[in-house]
Amino acid sequence: MALSLTVSAMSTFTLANVSIDDFLAKHWQQQPLVIRGGFEHFADPLSPDELAGLACEEQIESRLVYRRGGEWQAEHGPFDSYERLGERDWTLIVQAANHWVPEVAELVKPFAFLPKWRLDDVMISYATPGGGVGPHIDRYDVFICQGSGRRRWRVGARGPHREFAAHAALLHCDPFEPIIDVELLPGDILYLPPGFPHDGVTLEASMSFSVGFRSKSPSELVSALADHLLDKELGNELLSDPGRPAHRQQGRIDATDFARLRAQMQAMLDDEAVLADAVGAMLSRNKCELDLQPLQEPYTSAELLEYWRQAPLLRIGGLRCFYVDATVAAGVCYIDGSRYNFGPACHGAVLALCDNDELDYAALAPWLEQPELVQALAQWVNRGYWYFDD
Amino acid sequence: MALSLTVSAMSTFTLANVSIDDFLAKHWQQQPLVIRGGFEHFADPLSPDELAGLACEEQIESRLVYRRGGEWQAEHGPFDSYERLGERDWTLIVQAANHWVPEVAELVKPFAFLPKWRLDDVMISYATPGGGVGPHIDRYDVFICQGSGRRRWRVGARGPHREFAAHAALLHCDPFEPIIDVELLPGDILYLPPGFPHDGVTLEASMSFSVGFRSKSPSELVSALADHLLDKELGNELLSDPGRPAHRQQGRIDATDFARLRAQMQAMLDDEAVLADAVGAMLSRNKCELDLQPLQEPYTSAELLEYWRQAPLLRIGGLRCFYVDATVAAGVCYIDGSRYNFGPACHGAVLALCDNDELDYAALAPWLEQPELVQALAQWVNRGYWYFDD
Ligand SMILES: O=C(O)CCC(=O)C(=O)O
Ligand SMILES: O=C(O)CCC(=O)C(=O)O
Ligand SMILES: [Co+2]
Ligand SMILES: [Co+2]
Repeated sequence: MALSLTVSAMSTFTLANVSIDDFLAKHWQQQPLVIRGGFEHFADPLSPDELAGLACEEQIESRLVYRRGGEWQAEHGPFDSYERLGERDWTLIVQAANHWVPEVAELVKPFAFLPKWRLDDVMISYATPGGGVGPHIDRYDVFICQGSGRRRWRVGARGPHREFAAHAALLHCDPFEPIIDVELLPGDILYLPPGFPHDGVTLEASMSFSVGFRSKSPSELVSALADHLLDKELGNELLSDPGRPAHRQQGRIDATDFARLRAQMQAMLDDEAVLADAVGAMLSRNKCELDLQPLQEPYTSAELLEYWRQAPLLRIGGLRCFYVDATVAAGVCYIDGSRYNFGPACHGAVLALCDNDELDYAALAPWLEQPELVQALAQWVNRGYWYFDD
Repeated sequence: MALSLTVSAMSTFTLANVSIDDFLAKHWQQQPLVIRGGFEHFADPLSPDELAGLACEEQIESRLVYRRGGEWQAEHGPFDSYERLGERDWTLIVQAANHWVPEVAELVKPFAFLPKWRLDDVMISYATPGGGVGPHIDRYDVFICQGSGRRRWRVGARGPHREFAAHAALLHCDPFEPIIDVELLPGDILYLPPGFPHDGVTLEASMSFSVGFRSKSPSELVSALADHLLDKELGNELLSDPGRPAHRQQGRIDATDFARLRAQMQAMLDDEAVLADAVGAMLSRNKCELDLQPLQEPYTSAELLEYWRQAPLLRIGGLRCFYVDATVAAGVCYIDGSRYNFGPACHGAVLALCDNDELDYAALAPWLEQPELVQALAQWVNRGYWYFDD
């Protein structure tokens, strides 16, 4: 599916008015922060109309939040019209807009002081006067970047705030005492760590760009490890217990047996390579769809190299490409949930591949004699992971 | 579903001609053993006709293995007729027969020198002359108890035997050099550890009773832990990384972050109570259906106690009831995949419950003032986990 949107000229954002070291030491995961003029000369990387264009696509996650007779309402997209909603009190939200619009993906770059594996997506909201999603608490870190329009944000302290479903698809929290109460102007940024209740009410039609970061829980990690073991048929050696003494209590799972069972699991956690592969696969998997446009006429390796000499390859927005210290020297990387192993000679190529959004031929040149790497690159380009901007 | 089979009178088996300590030290999980006259006066706990009766039931797992024109064939039950198969070269196999016939469940008792959590089930085969399932390797320990008829068994050494699908549902191994070649007579037992290829060919119509033991792999255990965490909503605290330094390489999951991710998983393994619950739930879950006959007129706690004073409660065949050293003092047990916690005062009750197939009122009497325990017992009896033999 190819989206043909007329998007504003590619803007390059740079963060201003914030000392990154200071931010990381005092705010990241700890305290909210209002960054006035965080972006200089901020221009919306896409317009409300373009946002509406995204929201009519089946494979793009969108939501509408509004009030009707004092009751909160939430609907899932796609949407093709907003007339019924009037001029006030509604918000349109589009998830993972960075997957679909390169200009939105640009918004992620100023946050490169955080590793890409921590990134979730860029969520965009367009709100009419009075609009907002209501007071709520998120589990993730977010930089809410104010685009056109003005919006009042109130933020409460972390603490035991009661949460409840204001609507089946809308988790709210009780009203809170604000520790921050600001009016954001275009280019301002509000950073929120997990757990701080917040409520944004739009004063005039407004665009918000939420650069969100995600984290993982032990439960998700153990599930990922289990999936990985199943998927790769690892960890299948059965527990063995030769030399056991005669057992007495039929129903007992005794300390010796329990220790054996536990040691079997521990062996999986102690296997650094298995763990690296499980974690790499998990963190590189996307939760939202990518804008993949497989090539109608796939490139051969030779054709790819020929074109690539003339123009850089661009990575599609949202594609997750990682390497792990434990396995990178062996030339292993994890892309979109899959593991690739190019061998120790390709160590440097893996770094170049995963660390950059734009891939210059020159940067990869030292490794382009490696047929497996070039074949993989051609396969990825044919699939739409990287593309030539033409 | 109530099976009404006319089964032979309840027989009680006892193991003969084997020193259990010797067996455990030298054979269990290590070396095959032929136990001549392992059962004295062995009488089939059910007849071939009764076996056929089980094999026509939808919820009982059965298989037919036979040869047609030199090709191996395997079919899944239920079956209602065997006439098409003739008089030779076929075998009928019924899995978990101990779940359905108390007399078959009796066969497990002589093996009480192994803990019940290691037990899988009792599989029964009826084979006509020339019949057998072909040369194969199992991953589990098994005591193949010869009932009526004679059967020749050949067993090969452990080693790298090629395995292949002789039929989509039949994994065979290449022919092997026998290290054991015996003719089993009624009451003889052949013990096989995992990995030893074996092949049994029936000389005259024969019944075999395979008391099988199972083990667990790291992969199964990690999956069970993952399921448990999801099921009980545990391990949901997100990784936190305040104070991180400015990141440089976008695609890198560095050693510090990797250690954080690993520590999250490790915390789950280090939580003995979580692990005990995950393992207890997993090991007490049944892979085959139980013959549960919920009571039409459920007992109240008072009624249960009244009846129980007059007759013992019998545990249904195959029900898995365990406790783990780590949590038993708190009164925790695991029955059929669920965790029950009766509190420290019921420690002794939990032992009595899980260690015995027959529950005397007197044995539980010290704890029958505990309303939660009595309610649970009534609930279990109403569900069919325990029953009065009338
Ligand atoms: O843009 C909005 O209306 C909501 C933004 C928000 O709450 C967030 O990004 O966490
Ligand atoms: O009874 C049979 O035909 C097969 C028995 C067997 O191979 C086993 O129990 O492992
Ligand atoms: Co929020
Ligand atoms: Co076998």
